[in-house]
Amino acid sequence: MTETKTGTLFGVGLGPGDPELMTLKAARVLSAAPVVAHFRKAGRPGHARTIATAHIRADVIETAFEYPVTTEIDFRDDGYVSAIRDFYERSAASIIVHLQAGRDVALLCEGDPFFYGSFLHMYDRIKAAHDVKVIPGITGMSGCWTAARAPITYGDDVMTVLPGTLDEGALAKHLKDADAAVIMKVGHNIAKIKAALHSAGRFDDAIYVERGTMPGERVTRLAELGECVVPYFSIILLPGGKGRRIT
Amino acid sequence: MTETKTGTLFGVGLGPGDPELMTLKAARVLSAAPVVAHFRKAGRPGHARTIATAHIRADVIETAFEYPVTTEIDFRDDGYVSAIRDFYERSAASIIVHLQAGRDVALLCEGDPFFYGSFLHMYDRIKAAHDVKVIPGITGMSGCWTAARAPITYGDDVMTVLPGTLDEGALAKHLKDADAAVIMKVGHNIAKIKAALHSAGRFDDAIYVERGTMPGERVTRLAELGECVVPYFSIILLPGGKGRRIT
Repeated sequence: MTETKTGTLFGVGLGPGDPELMTLKAARVLSAAPVVAHFRKAGRPGHARTIATAHIRADVIETAFEYPVTTEIDFRDDGYVSAIRDFYERSAASIIVHLQAGRDVALLCEGDPFFYGSFLHMYDRIKAAHDVKVIPGITGMSGCWTAARAPITYGDDVMTVLPGTLDEGALAKHLKDADAAVIMKVGHNIAKIKAALHSAGRFDDAIYVERGTMPGERVTRLAELGECVVPYFSIILLPGGKGRRIT
Repeated sequence: MTETKTGTLFGVGLGPGDPELMTLKAARVLSAAPVVAHFRKAGRPGHARTIATAHIRADVIETAFEYPVTTEIDFRDDGYVSAIRDFYERSAASIIVHLQAGRDVALLCEGDPFFYGSFLHMYDRIKAAHDVKVIPGITGMSGCWTAARAPITYGDDVMTVLPGTLDEGALAKHLKDADAAVIMKVGHNIAKIKAALHSAGRFDDAIYVERGTMPGERVTRLAELGECVVPYFSIILLPGGKGRRIT
């Protein structure tokens, strides 16, 4: 029996949503991959899979990992942590089966694989024993500030990226200290985020972006958004500009 | 005489340096553009031009804008501000000549056009009177954390981007407050940046990256870099991970 060469796990950054904002490298790796894996909400086709569609081989082996719980549950909840840890263990084990059989696996990642997101939990579990290659992608926030036609940083601006899951005091403190800011994971955190923006004196500058670079894209001043339910992956931008010395 | 349709200015994000990390959209727009413009240091071919080479038309009209002063001069120096303002005025005027003649112009941007950089000075001068479209790109910092195999943010990490031009006290304060940090524009600021990292208690975690994703790429712990002259566009990373709740 000849020894099988083990496969490589590719973390493939797909960018912010517009399939044309994928890189040439991501398109090349996807079109060669015998196995494609991706995370998705139960019962949905999955954003990542939708972005990648045009580049996936007809004879691909496809594996979808369906989150057992909603992303909206609090991270610090013990039941959540236990359920999602088991889920990540099983997902990693499923990838490793292919790698051990000598098949490369392309794991689809919305945005950039090393900037938040589920890929990191696979990376941390697989990198020690297997070859892992990461292809960076345009972040969702970059897609959003482009969609909003809002240059985010000039000159010597400081930019801070804040998960909307932080408490109001922490959000307000960081918002006061930064020239530019991006608030991710808005969803049910929106009332708290609005309060923090008011308390930092920055509410009027905030821009709300939903589905940036995708069909159904929505860009509005946060002050004009009104009361409504918003998706978890929407983003709020505070563009910089104080660092702009040359006008 | 028939009226000429005026051209569109495309701000084309080229990504962090590896030409294959350009987007499909950037490649398409470049291959159609009758005029390509780019900024560069005097006497150099220019990074942006080098990244884009494979996609530029053989019959293209090419315009290089050569910086009149080094990027290493202090932003707050009056002579610098005056020289560079004149330079941006002339560069914008030169682009507008093409737009008024009905020719689209692709302005090459390293990284992402709306994240720092000279494109913004063209955007602010041209957008009111002409059509401007922006194609986002992978940021240089994203190329650097990928090159360093250093996931930058997990879970609810706060990430701060700091220009190395800030003073030591401001750097240290922001470094203390963030989970993850990226320090841009290192160059001759390196001694000050090291002092700020020490004072924030984070020196040992810092990673130095030069020419991320490009030939000559260099990744090392900052503690092992030693005393040396480093390029302006090198980057220092402080990876996050405190926000990682699930291991």
